[in-house]
Amino acid sequence: SQTFTITVLPGDGIGPEVIEQAVNVLRVIEELEDVSFTLEYARLGGCAIDEDGTPLPQDTLDKARRSDAVLLGAVGGPKWDNNPAHLRPETGLLGIRKELGLYANLRPAFMLDCMVGVSALKEEVVKGVDLMVIRELTGGLYFGEKKRYETENGEVASDELIYHEYEIERIVRRAFEVARLRSKKLTSVDKANVLESSRLWRKVVERVAPDYPDVELRHQLVDSCAMELIRWPKQFDTIVTENMFGDILSDEASMLTGSIGMLPSASLADGNFGLYEPVHGSAPDIAGKGIANPTATILSAAMMLKYSFGLEKAANAIEQAVHTVLNSGVRTGDIADNKDEAVGTKEMADKIIAAI
Amino acid sequence: SQTFTITVLPGDGIGPEVIEQAVNVLRVIEELEDVSFTLEYARLGGCAIDEDGTPLPQDTLDKARRSDAVLLGAVGGPKWDNNPAHLRPETGLLGIRKELGLYANLRPAFMLDCMVGVSALKEEVVKGVDLMVIRELTGGLYFGEKKRYETENGEVASDELIYHEYEIERIVRRAFEVARLRSKKLTSVDKANVLESSRLWRKVVERVAPDYPDVELRHQLVDSCAMELIRWPKQFDTIVTENMFGDILSDEASMLTGSIGMLPSASLADGNFGLYEPVHGSAPDIAGKGIANPTATILSAAMMLKYSFGLEKAANAIEQAVHTVLNSGVRTGDIADNKDEAVGTKEMADKIIAAI
Ligand SMILES: CC(C)[C@H](C(=O)O)[C@@H](O)C(=O)O
Ligand SMILES: CC(C)[C@H](C(=O)O)[C@@H](O)C(=O)O
Repeated sequence: SQTFTITVLPGDGIGPEVIEQAVNVLRVIEELEDVSFTLEYARLGGCAIDEDGTPLPQDTLDKARRSDAVLLGAVGGPKWDNNPAHLRPETGLLGIRKELGLYANLRPAFMLDCMVGVSALKEEVVKGVDLMVIRELTGGLYFGEKKRYETENGEVASDELIYHEYEIERIVRRAFEVARLRSKKLTSVDKANVLESSRLWRKVVERVAPDYPDVELRHQLVDSCAMELIRWPKQFDTIVTENMFGDILSDEASMLTGSIGMLPSASLADGNFGLYEPVHGSAPDIAGKGIANPTATILSAAMMLKYSFGLEKAANAIEQAVHTVLNSGVRTGDIADNKDEAVGTKEMADKIIAAI
Repeated sequence: SQTFTITVLPGDGIGPEVIEQAVNVLRVIEELEDVSFTLEYARLGGCAIDEDGTPLPQDTLDKARRSDAVLLGAVGGPKWDNNPAHLRPETGLLGIRKELGLYANLRPAFMLDCMVGVSALKEEVVKGVDLMVIRELTGGLYFGEKKRYETENGEVASDELIYHEYEIERIVRRAFEVARLRSKKLTSVDKANVLESSRLWRKVVERVAPDYPDVELRHQLVDSCAMELIRWPKQFDTIVTENMFGDILSDEASMLTGSIGMLPSASLADGNFGLYEPVHGSAPDIAGKGIANPTATILSAAMMLKYSFGLEKAANAIEQAVHTVLNSGVRTGDIADNKDEAVGTKEMADKIIAAI
């Protein structure tokens, strides 16, 4: 029997609650498949600031490096919002991405038929939407040199959007490979009419494209993409883009579905290693109430089974169970039409477990 | 009687067609008000590349500097898409913005009741949307230092997102002033949890805010704003943000209305000088067919009357006329439910003129 070690980072806010349910789902998979999971708990974000004096303790990095994958709840909260940068939860998140080389952020945005009602968009526009935003996660505007200095005329601040050819190449190849397993349509998003980094991006995409002749490639400007995602999202399948553009566009794409409480994400390194987390945040306003939607975290665990452990069958079983439960009308408060009939975190997860 | 000099830049694609109609509207205003307009035609973009060998001829800059405002159609087209950067139409646009100090880009996005049908969003979400995105236009990622060089491991390219305190201050003050004349709600959008330039941006906003105690201020992260614009756009009134973020968010906001063929924009310098242009592009696919929607350019002319000439009454008359015509069901092809009943560019403008 196979054994995988998972570093579990519950994090802050609703993080621990949704993680608990994802772990319950993993326990069920152990019963059904010839596999076992060793869980190593560690801290990231606000809880680590409080306990360890840093958002990314060395112990967390060590555990993550020794494990086969990382499962994260969510980090952040008002308590740490006014801290200096090095004592902020998101600094831990950015740090772990960089330290573990998690350069490929996969963010699916899909619309289940039974959920079209919750979207802000018209049914005919969003029904059947199924797209994947692949965001470069360890370069670009996030990680270039930052400056802050005084001049005679006041302060100046800057950030650098910088890409090396190899950074672009590896994310673009990954995107072509993902697109190949989906409907073979890849849109590369840049701002090549203005940015030098985008011109290099586009050049690398063009150089790499002939290796994937079966994938249909399109270039699109980021402003145009932001529009077209709203006008007719079904024209897109896989989108690949720079870190900052990807931050914006993946959030926009998520919201097309109206149900970000259901969307998972994967952040992959070379090889099989990856960190998996829900797209939603730590939602401090509902933390501890047992009403958070665990679906995104459970689907993140499913992505982990698929991308890091090669357990495609188990991953599909979880996804199917989620669809079945949602189809049957069970809803947590964030996606319920009728808030009175909404179920809690545990009940939602139990239904999913029962359906697996 | 007052006289204003306007530099008219028809540009490329549908530019000349829509400009012709906006000029017709200005001629009508001359008849109705005690005002006259001296028009100076000049070239910008692709037509200037072809005729003058540069997208921004000196003659165009000279004329613009001598005039009270600039009215622009649109620039660009596939013919020039593969040119080197200095021979591309958008380089002319970026150049004229920078040369004329047009740092404040005002991009309204409004939903007329009679147009809710054309939006991709549900009626209850978009009905009554009326927002103004104010984009910093001469700094940030667009104008910072660009680099491109070879290393042993391949090429590297970079762009710098840089802001001086005074650049932030002037756009933010402008935004507070605009918000004050609207519903007194200003959202400042940044990525202060990651970018140093955003931290300076936020600091300047905080410093300036006490001078506008009547305006309610909110800070929002750019990714969150991209989501919230879709989820519930009516929460926004005036939004102010950095150049690149503004490019993306203003296009996203325009598309909420589903009718970008109707949206105008203003790019203002200190004082009363400004450049006015429709939000849409040069639409080469429909150029010369007489079917382009002239409304955005006509409304851009109205913004010019208001912001550069102080002719509020005439501006309102044009806006009212546009509403009247649209309310009566007259539509160009881009916004028509029934394409067979769509009117052409001239007919649309004639109806608007008749309604003034
Ligand atoms: C918390 C923040 C730093 C982070 C990011 O911008 O990458 C988040 O928005 C995300 O998308 O994961
Ligand atoms: C054409 C392009 C350079 C321009 C920009 O990015 O500013 C356009 O998208 C706009 O928004 O006016």
